Amino acid sequence: MTKRDFATINLAGAGLAGSLMAVYLAQKGYAVNVYERRPDMRKVEGDQGRSINLALSVRGIQALRETGMEEHVMKMAIPMYGRMIHDENGLQTFQAYSRDRKSCIYSISRAELNKSLMTMAESFEGIRFHFNKACEEMDFSSGKLVVKDTISGEKSVAPGTITLACDGAFSAIRYDMQKTPRFDFSQTYLAHGYKELTIPPGAGGTFLLEKHALHIWPRGHFMMIALPNPDGSFTCTLFFPFEGEKSFANLSTTEAVHTFFSEYFPDTLPLIPDLLNDFFANPTSSLVTIRCYPWIWEDKVALIGDAAHAIVPFFGQGMNAAFEDCTVLNQCMEEHGSDWGKIFAEYQQLRKNNAEAIANMALENFVEMRDTVADERFLFRKKVEHLLGQKFGPYFSRYELVSFSRIPYEEAYRRGLINQAILDELTDGRSDLAEIDFEKAETLINERLGADFTIPGFA
Amino acid sequence: MTKRDFATINLAGAGLAGSLMAVYLAQKGYAVNVYERRPDMRKVEGDQGRSINLALSVRGIQALRETGMEEHVMKMAIPMYGRMIHDENGLQTFQAYSRDRKSCIYSISRAELNKSLMTMAESFEGIRFHFNKACEEMDFSSGKLVVKDTISGEKSVAPGTITLACDGAFSAIRYDMQKTPRFDFSQTYLAHGYKELTIPPGAGGTFLLEKHALHIWPRGHFMMIALPNPDGSFTCTLFFPFEGEKSFANLSTTEAVHTFFSEYFPDTLPLIPDLLNDFFANPTSSLVTIRCYPWIWEDKVALIGDAAHAIVPFFGQGMNAAFEDCTVLNQCMEEHGSDWGKIFAEYQQLRKNNAEAIANMALENFVEMRDTVADERFLFRKKVEHLLGQKFGPYFSRYELVSFSRIPYEEAYRRGLINQAILDELTDGRSDLAEIDFEKAETLINERLGADFTIPGFA
Repeated sequence: MTKRDFATINLAGAGLAGSLMAVYLAQKGYAVNVYERRPDMRKVEGDQGRSINLALSVRGIQALRETGMEEHVMKMAIPMYGRMIHDENGLQTFQAYSRDRKSCIYSISRAELNKSLMTMAESFEGIRFHFNKACEEMDFSSGKLVVKDTISGEKSVAPGTITLACDGAFSAIRYDMQKTPRFDFSQTYLAHGYKELTIPPGAGGTFLLEKHALHIWPRGHFMMIALPNPDGSFTCTLFFPFEGEKSFANLSTTEAVHTFFSEYFPDTLPLIPDLLNDFFANPTSSLVTIRCYPWIWEDKVALIGDAAHAIVPFFGQGMNAAFEDCTVLNQCMEEHGSDWGKIFAEYQQLRKNNAEAIANMALENFVEMRDTVADERFLFRKKVEHLLGQKFGPYFSRYELVSFSRIPYEEAYRRGLINQAILDELTDGRSDLAEIDFEKAETLINERLGADFTIPGFA
Repeated sequence: MTKRDFATINLAGAGLAGSLMAVYLAQKGYAVNVYERRPDMRKVEGDQGRSINLALSVRGIQALRETGMEEHVMKMAIPMYGRMIHDENGLQTFQAYSRDRKSCIYSISRAELNKSLMTMAESFEGIRFHFNKACEEMDFSSGKLVVKDTISGEKSVAPGTITLACDGAFSAIRYDMQKTPRFDFSQTYLAHGYKELTIPPGAGGTFLLEKHALHIWPRGHFMMIALPNPDGSFTCTLFFPFEGEKSFANLSTTEAVHTFFSEYFPDTLPLIPDLLNDFFANPTSSLVTIRCYPWIWEDKVALIGDAAHAIVPFFGQGMNAAFEDCTVLNQCMEEHGSDWGKIFAEYQQLRKNNAEAIANMALENFVEMRDTVADERFLFRKKVEHLLGQKFGPYFSRYELVSFSRIPYEEAYRRGLINQAILDELTDGRSDLAEIDFEKAETLINERLGADFTIPGFA
């Protein structure tokens, strides 16, 4: 057996999770080689093939804080305190995310955040980024990673025998793992795709919609959303079926697109001047959920972020979950020193079920955002839910637990089911706040959710 | 656009489905090149890495009949009329498969069947087998298939632009399809593995257990089964967890294996003389379920059999389902001539849901075989079920519908659920046949299963 070198770590992918994880590792004294198959995005123009906007929340911010990058990043972030619902007539209604109306998620540019994380990571002596280097082949028995230069075609063996795969939903390393014995794997696509459009800034960089909200145009089986950018623009994303009567396939002419927007999103027509050009110039992208197990191979390989658990974007948790993977992996490193077998085993054990939970919640939230958010019944239950939160300490909505706390996703899911049962008991057959039995509510909450449950940051 | 040659078809894999499909195609006048990455199994000794015995039933036999291969194949087949249950004391109880006790499934050797199908296929002028030729790369836009000689390493482009992928659960062509847009895919392993053992023939080639039965040793969370071979031997398969207290991982010494068999399968100890050698010499294999969609790429590629829908073996339907794919594809060819776009689209539409249904039934049947088959309650319900079948024309057990009829698997699944509901109503709270209300039974059956439902081959 050759002596293994634990001081050098291979990191596949210089995306968000890869750049962050590199810093966690460098802070622990590891030398880190980051292999990225694409060119350095700071030096080339062009689409990265991914959504332009992200929602950063508490779990992601925690990781940035621990790596000393919070302050810098938050300068690029725009707080959003709730959803602004746009109906077919252009009427807007604000729904706060939290009972204190102070908690927020942050709109941030994926590309700017990524570039910024790379640059901060590069300032660590131990971190080296290697661009145009694709992970070509993983030898799981030795832990050796073969890297291929995408320009010269030359292959080389990376130093080190530990690889962290942060190479995204279509992870090359996971494709290799797929052929190892008893590797469970699934990739599942939604019938909906998405297309991005732009609302440019108003005169002098003003915001033409409310700046501090996530805008939603819920239309039942489809929806559009918009997130603010620092320059005053908004990035809109239309989530729409690929096929069927109302589908991208049937929006094949400028007339059809114009008619469609006039009917469903009339208030956006004056705001999106390049609609017809952009609609046909921009790609229609797909939405995948990736699940797999195991995430690790002995003490040699671990999958992190989208490589292990790509999810749909409807809870705004993809990046936050990936960053939380890094936070947890760092905790495991603190606990187990350089025993990577134990580090990886505990990381997987702590994260797998939580990844499943957020994957399922993200799928469920699509229905909420595109459909029920505009429903009378939903709004009444939301009102009751906010009151329960304001009146009774231990009651937090699932959205609050996921977005404003760091309790495990699995626990958020579990408490969310209890919340729904409590709301059923309190609201079934009622439609007026005066009819709600708040004494019963308090009893139910204390019994089922625990009288002393709190999350930091809430009164 | 280059002119496409519809007269030559590429077939990936010379396994059971590939050899059969080649004959269906040759009968329609196509030239067929079969590419098999392994050597010719008729010329080399050695394990094919797959289960030794198969259960052939009506769906499979139908395909053999249509291709003129039934008579030859059935000479190798041993009829099994039911399950022989072995309890911990060696007591044996026979459970017939069908109400008429005449319907049977057939034990057949995978290797002998495969060799025989290959030889019969080769007698067709249009069919050529190419061994040691791996399907290396599929260009979906042109339909061109690159084949690699596994000995010389030489690559060549196969003639023709239509490929039928019969290359099994780990299909190379499906791996390429996995990277095409919006391809849904999952591979899921059971926590159980399997190991094959042998009961040799008695003196003069006699059978040491009942020849015409599928033997089961149900033990709750695990089981052993045995199928007869023409030479008087039985192939035993132990289905057992990989890990845990009672698991392959814990049967690591000859003492442990001997103690385990003495406790759970005492009647097999005198029958398996090479138990301890074979147990450690034979591999422990895994059990996978593969699901994917789509199965086709335009008019160029279709997945068939395990490549599209590998299932666990507990309904004895893996090969039968694959053969039925070929039968259905042949029907689609008859309907749509050489319009392969239509042929493939209809094939997929007719088969996908049926494959899902048999995949689910195969997983469910594992629980029945290893556990409930030995349960008093199960046995009582089985008795009632057989009586319903004998008394009332339209009542067929799910097992009969799957194994002795060719009604779509999805329909067998649907009727199976209705059966269970009827049995619940008739047997709940009762444990004596005298308590069963057969008038009510007739009403329920006629109402819910249709008074005039019949399947051929039953009185």
